[in-house]
Amino acid sequence: MELGIIGLGKMGGNMAERLRRAGHKVVGFDFSKEATAKLTAAGSLGVDSLEDLVANLSAPRAIWIMVPSGDPVDQTIAKLKPLMQKGDIFIDGGNSNYKDTQRRHDELVPEGFGFVDCGTSGGIWGISEGYSMMIGGDKEVVESLRPIFETLAPGKDEGWGRVGPSGAGHFVKMVHNGIEYGLMQAYAEGFSILKAKKVLDLDLLQIASIWQKGSVVRSWLLDLTTDALRKNINLDGLEAFVPDSGEGRWTVFEAIDLNVSAPVITESLLRRVRSREENNFTDRMLAVMRNEFGGHAVKKS
Amino acid sequence: MELGIIGLGKMGGNMAERLRRAGHKVVGFDFSKEATAKLTAAGSLGVDSLEDLVANLSAPRAIWIMVPSGDPVDQTIAKLKPLMQKGDIFIDGGNSNYKDTQRRHDELVPEGFGFVDCGTSGGIWGISEGYSMMIGGDKEVVESLRPIFETLAPGKDEGWGRVGPSGAGHFVKMVHNGIEYGLMQAYAEGFSILKAKKVLDLDLLQIASIWQKGSVVRSWLLDLTTDALRKNINLDGLEAFVPDSGEGRWTVFEAIDLNVSAPVITESLLRRVRSREENNFTDRMLAVMRNEFGGHAVKKS
Amino acid sequence: MELGIIGLGKMGGNMAERLRRAGHKVVGFDFSKEATAKLTAAGSLGVDSLEDLVANLSAPRAIWIMVPSGDPVDQTIAKLKPLMQKGDIFIDGGNSNYKDTQRRHDELVPEGFGFVDCGTSGGIWGISEGYSMMIGGDKEVVESLRPIFETLAPGKDEGWGRVGPSGAGHFVKMVHNGIEYGLMQAYAEGFSILKAKKVLDLDLLQIASIWQKGSVVRSWLLDLTTDALRKNINLDGLEAFVPDSGEGRWTVFEAIDLNVSAPVITESLLRRVRSREENNFTDRMLAVMRNEFGGHAVKKS
Amino acid sequence: MELGIIGLGKMGGNMAERLRRAGHKVVGFDFSKEATAKLTAAGSLGVDSLEDLVANLSAPRAIWIMVPSGDPVDQTIAKLKPLMQKGDIFIDGGNSNYKDTQRRHDELVPEGFGFVDCGTSGGIWGISEGYSMMIGGDKEVVESLRPIFETLAPGKDEGWGRVGPSGAGHFVKMVHNGIEYGLMQAYAEGFSILKAKKVLDLDLLQIASIWQKGSVVRSWLLDLTTDALRKNINLDGLEAFVPDSGEGRWTVFEAIDLNVSAPVITESLLRRVRSREENNFTDRMLAVMRNEFGGHAVKKS
Repeated sequence: MELGIIGLGKMGGNMAERLRRAGHKVVGFDFSKEATAKLTAAGSLGVDSLEDLVANLSAPRAIWIMVPSGDPVDQTIAKLKPLMQKGDIFIDGGNSNYKDTQRRHDELVPEGFGFVDCGTSGGIWGISEGYSMMIGGDKEVVESLRPIFETLAPGKDEGWGRVGPSGAGHFVKMVHNGIEYGLMQAYAEGFSILKAKKVLDLDLLQIASIWQKGSVVRSWLLDLTTDALRKNINLDGLEAFVPDSGEGRWTVFEAIDLNVSAPVITESLLRRVRSREENNFTDRMLAVMRNEFGGHAVKKS
Repeated sequence: MELGIIGLGKMGGNMAERLRRAGHKVVGFDFSKEATAKLTAAGSLGVDSLEDLVANLSAPRAIWIMVPSGDPVDQTIAKLKPLMQKGDIFIDGGNSNYKDTQRRHDELVPEGFGFVDCGTSGGIWGISEGYSMMIGGDKEVVESLRPIFETLAPGKDEGWGRVGPSGAGHFVKMVHNGIEYGLMQAYAEGFSILKAKKVLDLDLLQIASIWQKGSVVRSWLLDLTTDALRKNINLDGLEAFVPDSGEGRWTVFEAIDLNVSAPVITESLLRRVRSREENNFTDRMLAVMRNEFGGHAVKKS
Repeated sequence: MELGIIGLGKMGGNMAERLRRAGHKVVGFDFSKEATAKLTAAGSLGVDSLEDLVANLSAPRAIWIMVPSGDPVDQTIAKLKPLMQKGDIFIDGGNSNYKDTQRRHDELVPEGFGFVDCGTSGGIWGISEGYSMMIGGDKEVVESLRPIFETLAPGKDEGWGRVGPSGAGHFVKMVHNGIEYGLMQAYAEGFSILKAKKVLDLDLLQIASIWQKGSVVRSWLLDLTTDALRKNINLDGLEAFVPDSGEGRWTVFEAIDLNVSAPVITESLLRRVRSREENNFTDRMLAVMRNEFGGHAVKKS
Repeated sequence: MELGIIGLGKMGGNMAERLRRAGHKVVGFDFSKEATAKLTAAGSLGVDSLEDLVANLSAPRAIWIMVPSGDPVDQTIAKLKPLMQKGDIFIDGGNSNYKDTQRRHDELVPEGFGFVDCGTSGGIWGISEGYSMMIGGDKEVVESLRPIFETLAPGKDEGWGRVGPSGAGHFVKMVHNGIEYGLMQAYAEGFSILKAKKVLDLDLLQIASIWQKGSVVRSWLLDLTTDALRKNINLDGLEAFVPDSGEGRWTVFEAIDLNVSAPVITESLLRRVRSREENNFTDRMLAVMRNEFGGHAVKKS
């Protein structure tokens, strides 16, 4: 079928290509001329305006929005809406907050549009391995997009599904990312302990490789970790600086709102926050308190 | 080659069978006559005394000890040692503390024995999928057992390796289990959040199945979790009671001793501890404090 | 001066009485006739309608709202506003979210009213010891209430102050409560460890009493804890159930929004949440995972 | 009465002086000639050898050991023992691990010596405010030292007590310090959140001062924090580097051994550990994982 894609970055660009290879017609827009040219060169159609995007798709249109969450999504919808017509479908494939998603759905549906949220996992590997997609929205609208999902997914009936009404897709993806934070932190801590045990002189790459086969902790993240260690066994030249992109903190907020205690996901987020705190005020305050009551020396900066 | 196995439970029994299928001669001992009979019925030799175990193996012998960590290991070695002769090898395949392992190694090696520690992962699935083995000990001793490890492992050269000197195998397995605690807790928290979001009426089994394919959180533990949800989607009839078996707390202690902060592994352990605290004194103390300063009502039991 | 008080519970009722003793004229309203009667009996004026409340105060009026946070505050303001006139002042002395406070301020000020937020600490002890008050709002408005604050505070110039613009008072009180959660949890954990060390047969009341004098951990909360232990050394008859009332979770959210990692305040909140989770799904999920990979027995409920 | 003191640092030196002022005879030893000279100048007797220390005390002697925990205590006892005679008493007033204390007690008592453990809190303020002392050991031996404890304590019958058999004093002090870690972290986090709320431009010193009077979080640690902020409101010139001195980690280990979940004390310790981790390997590992699966940029050092 035909699909418009807005945002041809690491995710959108690869998805376009995976769809094209399966025979779908893809029209893609991006602010970067380089990105649209690359799309055209690959055999799809890259366009430089939303007008052209819409003009090159036959109604009812399906347009996949793959832009950063928050304002960019609202702005994209606002610009796109006047160009589209009743029966056209917006798909938000990014990491939007599910509450924003529900708001957008409730605005667009009464105007005659379809609106689907698709939490998309798989990263840069999706182009070859397929994307895991958690989809929310009205049943028949989701169903009308089946050919797209079947192609993007790892298998025709695998790795994708409508998990509930509008917002459900982004909610499940949010929790997915919360879990991801916890898994990553667990591995990272474990390897740090191994590395710190200097007296045993352990080979982290060898250990990761052993664990990949038959162990309880084998996983795709472990496979990637093994690859990373193979390239740079001591992780030299990197800063200990870890961004977080929204879903982790939303998961923490949501858990508390739902009265679910989730210490590991929470602590995983806090450690990322901590990685970005320079000359931490909390720690300096502890240092002066120790000095005040015990006369313990503080370290001057 | 020939191998004696002491302890024919879920792990030892399955390992014996995997070895037999590959043509190794296995002699197994267990306190349970049922277990030894089962071994014999399967085509290996089950014996009812350590004397018979040793007598049925040709020197230099290799005997795999697969019993609970702590005293049982020391007792087994103490009983076995007088029956064995120089050049014979003990393999501790259980979850011993690596410090105990190093102590045992340093006692046995001067007496002419070999002593190898093998952290063994894979659980009840190892019989078919192979075991992930992290091995510590003297190089030539480990090497002499190569045919055993190649058979037990998922692949001839996969999923096993000598990771360092005596104790290294159990150290690495300890950290492996610490990571495992963290991974499990991350998934469990995530699914709890999904379940608590009643308004979306999410299907945990469907979501787990989607995540198995293409997602960043795919893993063997997720596969098992999916199986568990398939059998009992609401986890009915279970108590929220989670044992811990030593390696988790040792990992926490070791991390602190090494000055590595590992909050997720630590918190995973604390939550297991918490699951076993009935009518928690900490919480009752919080309740009375609130009552003292604010006059807030307490809940009577 | 004159003050109207809405809400004559544990906090509002005591504050009215502290003010009366110092010679202020207090008019109080509560939905409970018992509460208003008690106020009148004590020598102030209890009234049964907001109309009477306003009618008994001379302009410019100051009315202290001491009701549960959220809707009750909005409803109170909505009912009160038509009865009041330009120059009258609302004081929100409860635990409102500072964002709600800022919204209310920005609505009321253009209409000619004053609006002050006062985070009020001290609990049921405030009547005798005075209240610690963190005040936000426009400078001259706060200043006009000085006689009230000087009386309610522990000392004329002690334990109170305008800490910033509208919302600042409730923000600071929110963080105060976050800290309070952390302090309480630290003590509660410590006493739990002491109690669990059965072999030493420690006397928790004796230890708390010793710590009250000269130790680094001496505090008002410790004094209260000591009182609680004196009344009920084993905390018998209590459920391990700990409510949280908003400020704690708001502190956690705010810290994350500000990119401050605050693990102890966060974990204190999560433990309260955990105290209210019955037959915890997270723990049951851990139990079945252990069963799946290791064949470990689960505890049936 | 007479008391020998070994170790005339911030704690021991002040204690000697507090005892002298009350009329006790103090003989003190330290490796530092400056310290012993200062003691003599103050009116007590500073000596330069353990021989002189013992020689200047009449039997039965009581000698207070105030040296760093671990080997220094064992070494001091080993050197002192040959000089002393049956009936003499050792008091370990430092922060020894209670297991070491019990071992020392069990070695010394059969040889005819007394051995008392005294967990001593109060820091540099003890000289004027008195020390909080948690004492373990045999009843009559502790009782024989009553004049010393009554003088060192904040009040004759206040702030000190025998809390149990040998080791109990150091056990209780250990938990005291664990609580202290939690309290400190709670305050430090709270002030960090206040500071990070730049839009409100809060005055941390003013807020701390308000809280000192009437608030639920008032405490001695808050008083000290207020003093520290008064001296250096932005904590300029300090490194965010926080040592820990043993008791915190022992409390964490002990809690786990006792199956008590103590997340706040634990997390307080982990944050101190974290403050000393430079270019954290855990965080770098998270950064490369993100890069592997999502192509997210890493920050180069």
